[in-house]
Formats: sequence, structure tokens, C-alpha cells
Amino acid sequence: MAVDSGAWRGTASAVATLTFDVDAETPILAAGGRYSRHLTTMSHQAYGPDVGVPRILDMLDELEVPATFFMPGWVAEKRPHLAASIVERGHEVAHHSYSHRTATDMTEQDQRDDFERALAVFASQGIEVSGYRAAMWQTTATTMELLAEHGLSYDSSMMADDRPYLLKLGDTDVVELPVHWSLDDWEQYAFLPEPFVGGIIEAPSKVFDLWRDELDGMSEYGCLFNLCLHPFLTARPGRLAVVRRLVEWARERGDISFERCRDVASRVAEVGGVREVYPAHTEIDPDTYPD
Amino acid sequence: MAVDSGAWRGTASAVATLTFDVDAETPILAAGGRYSRHLTTMSHQAYGPDVGVPRILDMLDELEVPATFFMPGWVAEKRPHLAASIVERGHEVAHHSYSHRTATDMTEQDQRDDFERALAVFASQGIEVSGYRAAMWQTTATTMELLAEHGLSYDSSMMADDRPYLLKLGDTDVVELPVHWSLDDWEQYAFLPEPFVGGIIEAPSKVFDLWRDELDGMSEYGCLFNLCLHPFLTARPGRLAVVRRLVEWARERGDISFERCRDVASRVAEVGGVREVYPAHTEIDPDTYPD
Amino acid sequence: MAVDSGAWRGTASAVATLTFDVDAETPILAAGGRYSRHLTTMSHQAYGPDVGVPRILDMLDELEVPATFFMPGWVAEKRPHLAASIVERGHEVAHHSYSHRTATDMTEQDQRDDFERALAVFASQGIEVSGYRAAMWQTTATTMELLAEHGLSYDSSMMADDRPYLLKLGDTDVVELPVHWSLDDWEQYAFLPEPFVGGIIEAPSKVFDLWRDELDGMSEYGCLFNLCLHPFLTARPGRLAVVRRLVEWARERGDISFERCRDVASRVAEVGGVREVYPAHTEIDPDTYPD
Amino acid sequence: MAVDSGAWRGTASAVATLTFDVDAETPILAAGGRYSRHLTTMSHQAYGPDVGVPRILDMLDELEVPATFFMPGWVAEKRPHLAASIVERGHEVAHHSYSHRTATDMTEQDQRDDFERALAVFASQGIEVSGYRAAMWQTTATTMELLAEHGLSYDSSMMADDRPYLLKLGDTDVVELPVHWSLDDWEQYAFLPEPFVGGIIEAPSKVFDLWRDELDGMSEYGCLFNLCLHPFLTARPGRLAVVRRLVEWARERGDISFERCRDVASRVAEVGGVREVYPAHTEIDPDTYPD
Repeated sequence: MAVDSGAWRGTASAVATLTFDVDAETPILAAGGRYSRHLTTMSHQAYGPDVGVPRILDMLDELEVPATFFMPGWVAEKRPHLAASIVERGHEVAHHSYSHRTATDMTEQDQRDDFERALAVFASQGIEVSGYRAAMWQTTATTMELLAEHGLSYDSSMMADDRPYLLKLGDTDVVELPVHWSLDDWEQYAFLPEPFVGGIIEAPSKVFDLWRDELDGMSEYGCLFNLCLHPFLTARPGRLAVVRRLVEWARERGDISFERCRDVASRVAEVGGVREVYPAHTEIDPDTYPD
Repeated sequence: MAVDSGAWRGTASAVATLTFDVDAETPILAAGGRYSRHLTTMSHQAYGPDVGVPRILDMLDELEVPATFFMPGWVAEKRPHLAASIVERGHEVAHHSYSHRTATDMTEQDQRDDFERALAVFASQGIEVSGYRAAMWQTTATTMELLAEHGLSYDSSMMADDRPYLLKLGDTDVVELPVHWSLDDWEQYAFLPEPFVGGIIEAPSKVFDLWRDELDGMSEYGCLFNLCLHPFLTARPGRLAVVRRLVEWARERGDISFERCRDVASRVAEVGGVREVYPAHTEIDPDTYPD
Repeated sequence: MAVDSGAWRGTASAVATLTFDVDAETPILAAGGRYSRHLTTMSHQAYGPDVGVPRILDMLDELEVPATFFMPGWVAEKRPHLAASIVERGHEVAHHSYSHRTATDMTEQDQRDDFERALAVFASQGIEVSGYRAAMWQTTATTMELLAEHGLSYDSSMMADDRPYLLKLGDTDVVELPVHWSLDDWEQYAFLPEPFVGGIIEAPSKVFDLWRDELDGMSEYGCLFNLCLHPFLTARPGRLAVVRRLVEWARERGDISFERCRDVASRVAEVGGVREVYPAHTEIDPDTYPD
Repeated sequence: MAVDSGAWRGTASAVATLTFDVDAETPILAAGGRYSRHLTTMSHQAYGPDVGVPRILDMLDELEVPATFFMPGWVAEKRPHLAASIVERGHEVAHHSYSHRTATDMTEQDQRDDFERALAVFASQGIEVSGYRAAMWQTTATTMELLAEHGLSYDSSMMADDRPYLLKLGDTDVVELPVHWSLDDWEQYAFLPEPFVGGIIEAPSKVFDLWRDELDGMSEYGCLFNLCLHPFLTARPGRLAVVRRLVEWARERGDISFERCRDVASRVAEVGGVREVYPAHTEIDPDTYPD
């Protein structure tokens, strides 16, 4: 396969994108509308946009780091000033579905409706979105079609590499900024018994170790350190310190650049030199692998 | 949203409330009355009030820290001298439901009966309760009505902030002293295969790290460090040392005050300057989020 | 409740009992006889008696520490020289059911048959057993009857205290040497996907921290450090070092005595001064807690 | 039972075999062919052979360590140059089933077909395989028959010891190079919600501690440090550093030799002095253990 030329990194040994998935109530409601009547659970999710986002924006100002906020259309609709409050501070807002339902569980039509409804919400608020991250990071052939049809410049939901690559979608190329479970705060912190979303609460000191080791390794291999954070999880005081320490660690190293996803994506599109991947179904024999 | 003035903290950078949920057998019995015949499981729960509480009371005396004990009415009834033994040492006893069943799984009438039955038990024992914590921290619209109707001065079951806030309930305000999964010993220590209540046993050294980091972070952001401990879990010798070290850590810092929940709540009510939250159902479209 | 006089500890600040549950294949077969055809799973369990026990016996010789081995009758029957090989080295073999099925899932008659069948196996091998530990630590009213009827001098399956106590069973007293999930290697190391017996593999360094902190705490509170180890888990080379380091740690402290369970139990019976517990069903109202 | 003479280790205190299970998409497809339409999940698995294997091969070159790659026939078929690219670098490719379905869930005929189909794939590619590792490490009586019939020189799927042993299969002996859950990266790193393959992501620093402690212990007891790594998990930059540090640790010790499985197996067959194990069904009474 094509070798990664590293041109997309410029002079940095690795590029870091701080991304915040502002899910608010959506992942819970996607598990069942009835959870809207579970007031504590709703309050747990509301903490994200209401307490977390302002606190994060202040920290980013202080650290002078630009970031990308993936937001479901439903969240932008319910809190009509939220997306603008982020863009005003110089950060990017990007498409994170409308309802945060999982594409692999939806009909093709529902996937289309959900995708386009979010685009309409952002358009109505004057928010220009150029990138997409699938809810639950689950993508389908329909996702690929929608990315191409609507001219998104990048996706950030797949894992075939730890460096940006090109999704070859018919006549269209979409830049993939890959994610990974190990660079997600959900697996480290999310705890909720019903709906069950996770059952482990790690100490911030462990999470710092995990991410710092990955950052150091990624610097060696010239990767994209694409960190996925959730305001309802990471804005808790003891956890926010992990993000701050990580940025400071990178600054001390001196060879990591922090960028918004759209800026990385447009440089990748411009300079090229990355892998090309054709995200088709893996062809399988149903005798070997029944559906 | 309204900014938190911090007046409720007085001169402290953060306020710490040590709270003990004296659940005894109730969370197990709520999962099935048949567990009353599982003698080992019952003995595991009885350790809390019978061995744990006296040990905790001695430690609190030694540390000169006041605390709040949330107790189901059923526990107060079965051990009629327990609540008084706590109040006599200068601590607060508060309402923690009657049976520790989960409100979101109960009819409205059952919620009312359970709530009021506990009030009757405490009244009959001369225990004045002014605050409430929902079983499993699960609250509903009915919970809100009951808090207002019965004139409770505070609730401690929700998570919309990490600073106290006002629950606006019709004509009534109730102070919310928010909790969080990360400041609960259950997620760190609880292990029981049947009924399953948790499957991980962390080392006390990890838990100390977790809570100390949160305390330090909360001091920076001016929060309420509302620690939730269970005598059947935390009174084990190696774990009790975590609480002791945490109090010592806060003392060394010098800027953390330790208080009973009711004292925090009445100061919040008096000085104000906190957020106001209207805990209504999140309105949802059933086409987007089926029940 | 009666205060613990501490007389049972003699001059030690805490007493440590190293106990090994030699379960071999039984917990797996109790989940389904079909697992006998899963050869890898069977080999995983056989490691315990075949590789683990001889290695443990050598280590105990080296450390000069006596220990107690709880063994299901089925295991003693299938490996007819195993129990004797342990007793010959100065250790105790005790009753750990016949089949390792869970008492709370069995009829009263099946519990009796299983209990008595193991007694017959040990008698036929000339192994004198004086103590009992329930499979899965699950005890019932029938367990209590059987302990009393058969004149066992102690049980080690319950958790109402962290110091020995007296089970008051009609006219008979049986010493309880309490266990706890946090002093069991199963929760730290056991991993098997099917039948699922656990899904976490901790580092030995974490487990050492956990147990050393508990040992230190138990020394402060005058407890029984009743450690439960499984040869198929703990005899792995990196894990055995935890036991060795723990014994060395205790030796350095100088105030911990290591004893066999039967010796602790007979001293408790002799000097008294421990709590008395009546292990009856917790009485419950089925309206509050349906079965 | 027969004592291990240690002759198979030569002058080393322990022998280390770095093994990589190049599963790619197979464990996911074995859980359901429908997952072929989950594009993110497929990309997560493709990372293994496409990014991971080349990176691992470079690291092994740099460290000058030979390794063994267990590969399902399906993977060799779909990526026809993969097996050769490994063998060319001096490493071993071995049989890891065709489809990675679990033998204990398959009919005898399906087990045979699957086993033989993989042999045909490797033969057609000119890859000589002399050893076998069962998918999911699950073996059956049929597995034993197939090993003997096809003259495999070793198996590496069982756990009756932590030193090589002889599987006595009728007239044939097959060397067993035992594995163990604690020396597998899956339990430490694998995370995938659907199909669920694991829910914990540990920090590399923890995993290093775990494996180093086991390596040190195994050196004391003269064992086979048979490490099982998955390219889709371990080739992530921060995790690859664990393998590198481990090799460096062993080099510093100076008493550990690194070898390919086939070389260990042929020396075991040659010098003998290991345990002999007859892997028959454990005979059980269905009254005690219903199927």
C-alpha cells in the first residue's frame, strides 16, 4: 500500500486535534425516549453543554489551542446559541448526526433524513460545517454516499490507520481523520447503569499516562493524535487537568502542532501523499460467516 | 445561565461534604426479597451498620469532621438506635427513601408511599431530617413534587453542576447539592455477583488518587466536593485510610472546609448567587426518540 | 453489640490465614457438564492442582508459613493423593463442598447430599476436616444446620465482620472466620469468557498494593487477614511473587502472626471475647420487597 | 507427575516466544457476517494486517528478534502476499484455523473442513506451517485428532502448564507450547461494543508491569514466556513501546532467549524431559454436573 509521505504534518512530528463531542442528552435518548423522564440522568448529560463547554472554552483560551466540536443537530437546536458561542471563540463546529442514533441500526432512509436534518439546523444557524463524525463512530455504505453527495471535506469516524488517509468514494475523495477507542475519554470515564453506557471510572492519572504514552509513540511514527473528549465527562475538574497537562507535555516536547480538524483536512487534500482506502464491504461467503 | 458567585463557599476554595449512605440490606432486597435467604450476602450488607458505622463515627471524632448520613427508613426501623447514635455524635441523618427501590421503576403512588413512610419512621424516632437523597440517585417528576410538598430544604441526587444550585419547583426552591459517580465509593469497590452490583475492586491507592485529583480540581473551580461513601464498602480497614488521608490532604491545603449537607444548604439558601435550574422533562419528539 | 476483646489475637496486632481454594475443574463443571469437552478450559483448571499446588507447597516451606487448603470432595476423589500431599507438609485440608455447586441454587436435600458426600471422601482418605468454606461463599439456613449437625468447629464463608465471630446455631456455636471479596485473588485475576468467570486481569503490583494496604489497616483495627487464593490463578509465576512479598512485608512489620484456620478457630473457641451473631433470615415484608 | 528437566531451555532461565495472531476481520465476522457492513469496525480490524504487521516487522528487524505469526487461512487468502512478506523476514507463519470460528461451537465435520481448508491455503502459497493455535484458544477432542492426523509438530492453545509439555495423542506426540490469558494483549486492550469483544483499555504502563513481572517470575521457575499479541491492538504506537521495552528488559537480564515457536517445539521433541499429558475428556457424572 502507498507509504505515508508525512507531508501533511509539515514540520511537526505529530499533529494533535483536540475534539469535543457535545452529545448532551442524545446518546441517552437514542437508547430510549423514556429516559427523558429520568431526571438525574438528564442532569448528568446537561452538565456537558451547560457547565462543561464554557469551562472548556476558557481553558482553550488560556492554553491558546484551537479545537473542534462535533455536535448533533438536536443539541444545536435545543440550545440555539451553543454552536455560535463556540465558533466565536475561533473553534470549529462539525456535523455529528442529528439524533446520535447508530447508523448500523437504521434504515438507509432514516440515515439520510438524520444526516440532512442536521445540515439544515447548522445552515439555519449560519454555522458552516465541513466535517463529519458518525454517532457511536458507526459508519455504513450510506454514510459514505452521504459524505460524497454533500461535499463534506472530511470524516472522522474510522480506524484503518493512525495517520490521515483518503476515502476513495467514486469520483470523490474525502479525507479521513481516524479515531481510536484508546484516544476517547468515554472508555475511561463513562459510567451509567441504565441505560448502560460504561461501568469503569479510571483515575485521571491513569488516563494521562495512557494518552501521553500514545502521544509519544505517535510522535515517533508520525501520526494524528486525534483525541475525542466529551464535555459531560472531561469537564469534571480533576479530569480537565489531564487535558491541560497533556497540552503542556506536548508544548515541552516542542514537536507537536495543535490544529482544528478542518485545517488538517484541507492540508491533507492539498499536499497529498497519504494512503488511499476504498471502504467497500468486505466480501464474505455466507457459508463461512452466516449473517 | 447565571454565574455562580461563590458566596456559598465563604472563604473556602471548595467545600467538602462527607456523606455516608447507610443502605445496609436494602439495595439487595430491592433486587429481590429472595436474597434475604442468601446468608452470606446479608452478612456482607450487615457489616455496614454493625461494624462500619461505629468505626466511622470514631474516625470522624478523631478527625473532628462533621458528616451526613443518608439512611433508608427501613434501616432506621430495623435498627432503632442507629440514627440516634449518629445524631448524638453531632452528625446529620437525612432521608434516603424507605426501601431503596428505584423511583424510575415505581408508580407515582408507590414513590409517594415510600417517601412518606420514611418520613414517618424518622419522626417517630425524633430524628429531624431536612434533606433527601434518592435511592440509586434516580429522580423523577414525582420526586420533585415530594421535595416541594414536604418542605425538604435540599436534595442531593442530581448532577447538572458541580456547585450547589437551586431547583426551581413551582413556588418552592430546593437547594441541590449535586453528586457524581466519580465521587462515589460504589463504582470503585462494590463487588457482588448476584444480585450483580459491581464487578471491580480497585486498590485504595487508586481511589485516593482519583479523589485527591478531583478535590484539587474542585478547589480550582470553586466546587462542592460531595463525597458519597457506603459503610459496608468504605469501612474496610484499608479503605478507611483513604478517607483519613483525604481529610489530611485537605487540611494541609488549608482552603477546604468540611461541613454537614444541611449547613451548606442553609447557607446557599441564605446567600444565594447560585444557578437556577428548572428540572422539567426534556421535551422529545417520539419519531426521533421512540420510548 | 459485644466488643471484640482481641484476646483471640494473642500478642499479634492482626492474624493472617493464607487459604488456598483448590477448586480445580469444579467451578467450571458446576456451570455445565458440557465444559468437560472444552479441553483448553479444562487444562486451565488442571494447572491449579497439578502445577500450582506443588509450587505453592514449596514456597510455603521456604517461607515457613502454615496454610489451609479448602478442597471440594470431587477434587480429592479425582486426585486421590492430593489432600495427603498437603497434610504431610504440615498444612490443613478443609471442607469446600463436594461439587462446588452454589447452595443458594440447590434444594435442601441436594445441599445435604453434597455436604455429606465430601465428608465421606475425606474420611475415606483419612483426612480430618474441622472447618468448612461454602462454594462461591454462598450460605443458606441449611448450611447452618449442617455445620451444627456435623460438629464442624468453624466456617469461613461469611462477612458480617472482619474479626472472627461466633455463629450462634441453636445449642451450638461455630466460629466464623470471615472472608471478603477484597481479599480474594479471583476478582483480581480470573478471566474466562465461557463460562464467564471474570473479565479483568490486574497486574500483580496492583494486587500487592491492595492487599498490603488492607493488611496494614487490619493491623490497626485488630482484624483477621483471611486471604483466599486459588492455585490455578495465584501459582502463575508473577503472581506467586505477590504472596511472597506480602509475607515478607508482614515479617518486617513484626506484629502479624500466620496460622492455620483450625488453630485460629480453636483459640477463638477457647478464649472467647468475640461478637455473637445469630444468622437468621432477615425478616422482610413481601409488599416492600417481592421475592 | 514427571518433573520438567529444563533441558528444553538450554542455558536460558526462560524462553520467550513473541507470537502475533494476525486475525484481521475474522473474529468479528465469526460473530456474524452482518458485521461486514459495519465499515468502522472493519477498518478497525484491517489496521492489523495493513498498518500493524509492516510496523511490527520493522520493529522486529530493529530488535533482531524472531517471531511467530499465527494466521487464519481466510486472512492469507484475502491478502495473498501477507504470509510471504512475513516469512521473507525470517519469521514463522503458523496455522490459526481458516475462519477463526470457535471449535467448541462447531460440528466435528465443520472443524475438520475449517482446519483442512487453511492447510490448503498455506500449501497453495508455499507457506510451510508446522504449528497450530486454535481460534479463541478453544480446543476439542477433534482438534487433538486433527493435530495428530496432519502431523503438526506443535500446538499452542492450551494451559495445563507454563512450560512446554507433550500432548500424548494415541501413537503421536505433539508438543504443547502453552498460552495464558495473562500473556495476551486482548484482555488488556481490546475494546469493541458490538460485537462485544472487550470493554477495558489499560494503559501501556500497566501492561508492561504485568508482563515484566511475569517474565521475571518465569525466569525463576524456568518457564516459556509465550506472549500473544494482536497487530490490530498492539501495533498502536504507545503499545508497541511495551513490546520494545520488554525485549530490552529481557536483554538487560541476559538470561532470556527469544525464539520462534517451531524452534522451541523441535528442541523439546529432541531433548525431551518435559511433562506428558493425556488430553482426554474429564469424566463426569451427569447427576453431579448436568450438561
